Amino acid sequence: MSSQLPPKLKPAARVAGQRQDVWSIVNEAAAASPKQPIVNMGQGFFGYNPPPFIINAAKSALDRVDCNQYSPTKGRPRLKKAIADAYEPFWGRKLNPETEVTITTGANEGMLSAFMAFIEPGDEVIIFEPFFDQYISNIEMPGGKIVYVPLHPPKDGATRTSSSAEWIIDFDELEKAITPKTKMIVINTPHNPVGKVFSKEELQRIGDICVKNEIIILSDEVYDRLYYVPFTRIATLSPEIEKLTLTVGSAGKNFYATGWRVGWLMGPEHLIRYVSAAHTRICYSSVSPLQEACAVGFEQAEAEGFWDETVRDMKGKMKRFNEVWEELGLPYTDPEGGYFVVVNMKKVKLPENYPFPPHVASRPRDFKLAWFLIQEVGVAAIPPTEFYTDANAHIAEDYIRFAVCKEDQVLETAKERLRGLKKYIEG
Amino acid sequence: MSSQLPPKLKPAARVAGQRQDVWSIVNEAAAASPKQPIVNMGQGFFGYNPPPFIINAAKSALDRVDCNQYSPTKGRPRLKKAIADAYEPFWGRKLNPETEVTITTGANEGMLSAFMAFIEPGDEVIIFEPFFDQYISNIEMPGGKIVYVPLHPPKDGATRTSSSAEWIIDFDELEKAITPKTKMIVINTPHNPVGKVFSKEELQRIGDICVKNEIIILSDEVYDRLYYVPFTRIATLSPEIEKLTLTVGSAGKNFYATGWRVGWLMGPEHLIRYVSAAHTRICYSSVSPLQEACAVGFEQAEAEGFWDETVRDMKGKMKRFNEVWEELGLPYTDPEGGYFVVVNMKKVKLPENYPFPPHVASRPRDFKLAWFLIQEVGVAAIPPTEFYTDANAHIAEDYIRFAVCKEDQVLETAKERLRGLKKYIEG
Repeated sequence: MSSQLPPKLKPAARVAGQRQDVWSIVNEAAAASPKQPIVNMGQGFFGYNPPPFIINAAKSALDRVDCNQYSPTKGRPRLKKAIADAYEPFWGRKLNPETEVTITTGANEGMLSAFMAFIEPGDEVIIFEPFFDQYISNIEMPGGKIVYVPLHPPKDGATRTSSSAEWIIDFDELEKAITPKTKMIVINTPHNPVGKVFSKEELQRIGDICVKNEIIILSDEVYDRLYYVPFTRIATLSPEIEKLTLTVGSAGKNFYATGWRVGWLMGPEHLIRYVSAAHTRICYSSVSPLQEACAVGFEQAEAEGFWDETVRDMKGKMKRFNEVWEELGLPYTDPEGGYFVVVNMKKVKLPENYPFPPHVASRPRDFKLAWFLIQEVGVAAIPPTEFYTDANAHIAEDYIRFAVCKEDQVLETAKERLRGLKKYIEG
Repeated sequence: MSSQLPPKLKPAARVAGQRQDVWSIVNEAAAASPKQPIVNMGQGFFGYNPPPFIINAAKSALDRVDCNQYSPTKGRPRLKKAIADAYEPFWGRKLNPETEVTITTGANEGMLSAFMAFIEPGDEVIIFEPFFDQYISNIEMPGGKIVYVPLHPPKDGATRTSSSAEWIIDFDELEKAITPKTKMIVINTPHNPVGKVFSKEELQRIGDICVKNEIIILSDEVYDRLYYVPFTRIATLSPEIEKLTLTVGSAGKNFYATGWRVGWLMGPEHLIRYVSAAHTRICYSSVSPLQEACAVGFEQAEAEGFWDETVRDMKGKMKRFNEVWEELGLPYTDPEGGYFVVVNMKKVKLPENYPFPPHVASRPRDFKLAWFLIQEVGVAAIPPTEFYTDANAHIAEDYIRFAVCKEDQVLETAKERLRGLKKYIEG
């Protein structure tokens, strides 16, 4: 049909002719799999609800006229204050809710607002591979050029279970990636999909490099309440680093509500004001009743014991699920944070002549593994080469990412199904 | 402080150094006014809640796990179907919810998605003055160039009350504004702030011009349930026009919930697919529980008598409020749709040497009128020259925009206060 359209109707390059994204491939394959109902451990949505004190706060907000109308573009004062108060212990000082916090439509639009605020066409942004896929389009939208620096997994990741701490930065590579046009760097800790919590030493080195080169640090900390080793926030390392740092948070990840679209950025006033300005032009304002509910969430989480519970629960889920890899003898990367685990499936032998469809056959081996799991095992998971450039995709082609933020019963069903992989694993 | 910042931290041109926007000026002045509590008829937020059947649907959705997690990027299937069904009578055919409807984070982000989908740097977009101010940044973000065509008010608008139908397009001006680079045109009907409902004849002429020149029509119809004269949707005029048309809708405006951030675009698959693609890159997905509530809204509105009630109520508010202009002898533009009324205040004599602050004194007369109303009368309203280019601002410098979507009691208080203008009006 499009070929008959008038040429003037053609879409902009930024949306035209992209290959099918991993979420669509996995979701469509899952829907069409013969193994129904499929166990979906692909996308990182929660299989359970936010706690009652937050759901009830949302319901109460819906009864208030002001909570159903436009919020201020920078966010509801109550939520900004609740966030400033909640992060005060980590910063070791009072944060100013009016100037150092701004609310966005999820962390995703928050990061886009940051790029829109600071990137001029041709400016360079450094990101680590593997990366969260939305970074790419969000950096390219304002005309940014992406410079990739890989995280290196342990060389023997195919033969032994290791810690996500063993995925490391080559600091020579990082320094070489910097040019006079480097405007920003993106950090993601706890990291999706690797589960790495960047160590204090790593963050200090990154921070020092950014101070020396005047590079804005965008620290994506959306999994900041899910860490199983000590967690450092780069903004808190020194005043010089803080001056350059925008920290990204997500109520969706914090409160089990990925569909609420409430995120925020924290940082110094001279950065936050422009993020707010960009956000105003992108979404105008963010969803009011759920901002109010998230304010209550932050106000009461500590007293409700929610932050401790969230770590304990997710750690339990991770342990419960990963038992199956011990049984199968498949090595995985034991995460230091977040709710993803990447499993190395080099030992899984896919049947020869298996009928992969063309859009899967043309992609690296992890896409074939994911397709096979959906079709033959009934478990959906994500091929992580989607989070790499083509040049570095080989690093991850034996890995598969599973999200464990699901009901325990679902995890047990997944394990039972995954035991069916046994016969494809070399002894 | 910024002057001491490293030069590399400077913001992008798209967010740097903008003058203070009208909403901040009015809201800050309102907060600081000696007349407290101020009656705020500035921004178009509702002074009352969505109807109970919609609030209850939102509360029910909050109890469902799937309604708190990510929705599909194109929107929840139930909402897309409810919208397709609700608009079928106007289109006179079934709409395909999977290909002809896409959900966005409010109409605002929906329009940005449309511009991001089709505008390459240097492409031209025609908009009518006065315009909704967010159009400007949304067109400029992807690099579009704006070409302005004014709506002309009646020449005797300062001396008699007239219909918003008398704000007219000069079609010679419109045709002259078209160049080979014209990619899109934006229409807004019912119109903010004028209240004009574009006539079928006007829309047919615009549509014919767009078909002839292959121009995409973005029809902002967010006030589409509030019309007091026959309302035509340009997409329904002919298959040739429909093929070029994206129609924008807003659940916030339809259901009295401007803080819910649920909007949508309807149009042919060859346009909608790229809007969806851009939306995915901007916000990823939109707020889930409130999408579900809006689905129920559309499913039940007709049976609840809600659409009739909304017209009857708003028409009643408009009539009730505008009585005060009759009393004062101030002419206004009687709106054919929407919830704004623009009042001509040429007859209001501002005291000489009145102490306007510099950021108001430097703007056209309507900013001074708005400031004076806030300080001396205790009613906040919007100066409409904000919706004009500097070159054409003189057209609107005697007008003030009031939003009547407020409780009747609030409208009565506003009227009582506005009677205080009597002594400033020449006989």
